[in-house]
Amino acid sequence: MQRLWLNCHAATMAGGQYSIIEDAALVTAGQRIAWIGPRAELPAGDYAETLDLGGKWLTPGLIDCHTHLVFGGDRSAEFEQRLQGVSYAEIAAAGGGIASTVRATRAATEEQLLAAATQRLRCLLREGVTTVEVKSGYGLDLTSEGKMLRVIRRLGECLPVTVKATCLAAHALPPEFAGRADDYIDLVCHEMLPALAAEGLVDAVDAFCEHLAFSPAQVERVFQRARELGLPVKLHAEQLSSLHGSSLAARYGALSADHLEFMDESDVQAMAAAGSVAVLLPGAFYFLRETQLPPMQALREHGVALAIASDLNPGTSPALSLRLMMNMACTLFRLTPEEALAGVTLHAAKALGLADSHGSLEVGKVADFVAWDIQRPAELAYWLGGELNKRVIRHAEEQTDVQ
Amino acid sequence: MQRLWLNCHAATMAGGQYSIIEDAALVTAGQRIAWIGPRAELPAGDYAETLDLGGKWLTPGLIDCHTHLVFGGDRSAEFEQRLQGVSYAEIAAAGGGIASTVRATRAATEEQLLAAATQRLRCLLREGVTTVEVKSGYGLDLTSEGKMLRVIRRLGECLPVTVKATCLAAHALPPEFAGRADDYIDLVCHEMLPALAAEGLVDAVDAFCEHLAFSPAQVERVFQRARELGLPVKLHAEQLSSLHGSSLAARYGALSADHLEFMDESDVQAMAAAGSVAVLLPGAFYFLRETQLPPMQALREHGVALAIASDLNPGTSPALSLRLMMNMACTLFRLTPEEALAGVTLHAAKALGLADSHGSLEVGKVADFVAWDIQRPAELAYWLGGELNKRVIRHAEEQTDVQ
Ligand SMILES: [Zn+2]
Ligand SMILES: [Zn+2]
Repeated sequence: MQRLWLNCHAATMAGGQYSIIEDAALVTAGQRIAWIGPRAELPAGDYAETLDLGGKWLTPGLIDCHTHLVFGGDRSAEFEQRLQGVSYAEIAAAGGGIASTVRATRAATEEQLLAAATQRLRCLLREGVTTVEVKSGYGLDLTSEGKMLRVIRRLGECLPVTVKATCLAAHALPPEFAGRADDYIDLVCHEMLPALAAEGLVDAVDAFCEHLAFSPAQVERVFQRARELGLPVKLHAEQLSSLHGSSLAARYGALSADHLEFMDESDVQAMAAAGSVAVLLPGAFYFLRETQLPPMQALREHGVALAIASDLNPGTSPALSLRLMMNMACTLFRLTPEEALAGVTLHAAKALGLADSHGSLEVGKVADFVAWDIQRPAELAYWLGGELNKRVIRHAEEQTDVQ
Repeated sequence: MQRLWLNCHAATMAGGQYSIIEDAALVTAGQRIAWIGPRAELPAGDYAETLDLGGKWLTPGLIDCHTHLVFGGDRSAEFEQRLQGVSYAEIAAAGGGIASTVRATRAATEEQLLAAATQRLRCLLREGVTTVEVKSGYGLDLTSEGKMLRVIRRLGECLPVTVKATCLAAHALPPEFAGRADDYIDLVCHEMLPALAAEGLVDAVDAFCEHLAFSPAQVERVFQRARELGLPVKLHAEQLSSLHGSSLAARYGALSADHLEFMDESDVQAMAAAGSVAVLLPGAFYFLRETQLPPMQALREHGVALAIASDLNPGTSPALSLRLMMNMACTLFRLTPEEALAGVTLHAAKALGLADSHGSLEVGKVADFVAWDIQRPAELAYWLGGELNKRVIRHAEEQTDVQ
């Protein structure tokens, strides 16, 4: 069935870059975009329905390409303790930090995890997110990682959102493997990844390459296994120090490397050559009060695609808003509003391997878009918090329950 | 009519500080709180209605005690230009900055201003704000300041929120007075303030004490006139430099001095002695990427009450969320979550002259409260963005239309 959408402007991201059509028209056929262009050039057609968008601005549906939104418990008590002067070391010694999230996630039932994650994901959807990536990584054993990944799959069945599931078993060393990181990596490579992949729960494989997590050599073993299993890879890299994880990721043709504050020029070149997306996570930068900025100039000069994501997680980025991340990318990392919008649409799609079907308003792509009640697209990055009036259209159908 | 509210915990702020009742009960009589305490101590009574709060956490209704949410236009284009490398000087030379907001506000009808302000205020209300202060200051002539103040009054009539109106005629020098600041202050003192006060439009008088606005001597003339008119004062002080405006405000018994990044120990002592509230505005600090922090330790040592507000305005803090300001106060200024909550309830009420009736859950105060679906009050400051499930009760009546 063909539908005609009229009376709007569009930030299409067509042709791989920010681009605009004023007084646009859009035709959907089934769940796809069949035509988009200036209204004056609209071909004559027999449309089953004509919808008036009331002069709104269209963008592609927003894509949050890096979240950890399935977790047990929260870490607000730790946030409070830190501000009362308790040190990280004291919190860790008392079983806090990521270890507390692992305990709470292992203890939670699938239903409990699903209920809590649904609430968080609804916050993102209310802002116009139509595609989201969610990582495991608080289970750290086969049973618990499987539980998380099943919850992630169910999120995509229960809510009007396209969900990509990433296995992040190599997120942290589980307590029962203390001092035996290589043994845990063995488990990840030989038991967890093959079993979880066989169950159809894994769309990509991620790891955390950092002194306090896993070494490049350990990450490379995970990447090799992912390659054998035919799964694309991503990496948490260069967040707190420079281990050249992003170069390693590039060597494995990673979809993305994420964080990247401490990457250097050689890493940028490697990612550019590999076509890997740089996923910036300004929420974690803000929440941890970091001062080392990602090398924006080098990333731009080498033409690395820049995505922005919430990193929604309980310890370092309890961020329930992707629009706020756009503002933080502009305010803290000095992205332009156009770059920020491309970072949560076009380039975020690429970071999820969805470049062919999502992330821009182009013929043949899925008709996921938002009609914003704004004067200019820059407003999406300008306002801090709040809710902008909008209509969300997913698979060419207007969504009313997430508003 | 007495109502009994059960099955909740309460962060009451009773006795002038953060304080907690677990398993609380609350009785309202008419629009006021008639009793609050541990449920076990609830006196026998004949209640017209018993309401189950489902185990939620009660806080006083949130109070945003410093906003400029009535304005024409927006400044997203300027935000974008800045990020594209255009300098402030170039933007100002092209008629941008506050001058553009003054032009747009003067050109707008009262209805247009009301419609735009209503949308912004609704964003605050959806987060549990039940009292808000709104300033004029983009009109800068009698007609236009009057127009803004009438819109501010109408906001309190149209929406379920208590609104305090502050006349900020001494916000900036209007273009027609270029080079004649003292003449403009004459106009403010001799014509604008008396006329606007006589119309009943002014609850308090504010000014902007800064090199790029008005000198302490000019501000003092405004304060003297306010005193003659029987109006309390407030001041934008020490945001960008140290002019000791906060000490001046204290000498006039100001309700508050606001911003305060550059205040010194003598200013802190003066404010403490006067009982003036320090209103911190972390949104502007963040948006302008300032680095000078307010002197938190001195403020705490001298016992100055700390409020937090959005400063919602188009140029330096387009912040539509008071909860986000709580997070920024913690993350950027290192307030504790308890201080942040007191800053948007107890101390914000004091900054508006409402200490006797608002800001805490105590017998005799107005029954404005929020029942939050959270595990701990610290979550209010912890989450970045998003919408927390809640019920808002104002004047002892549940509000459903702002959710
Ligand atoms: Zn992450
Ligand atoms: Zn202000």
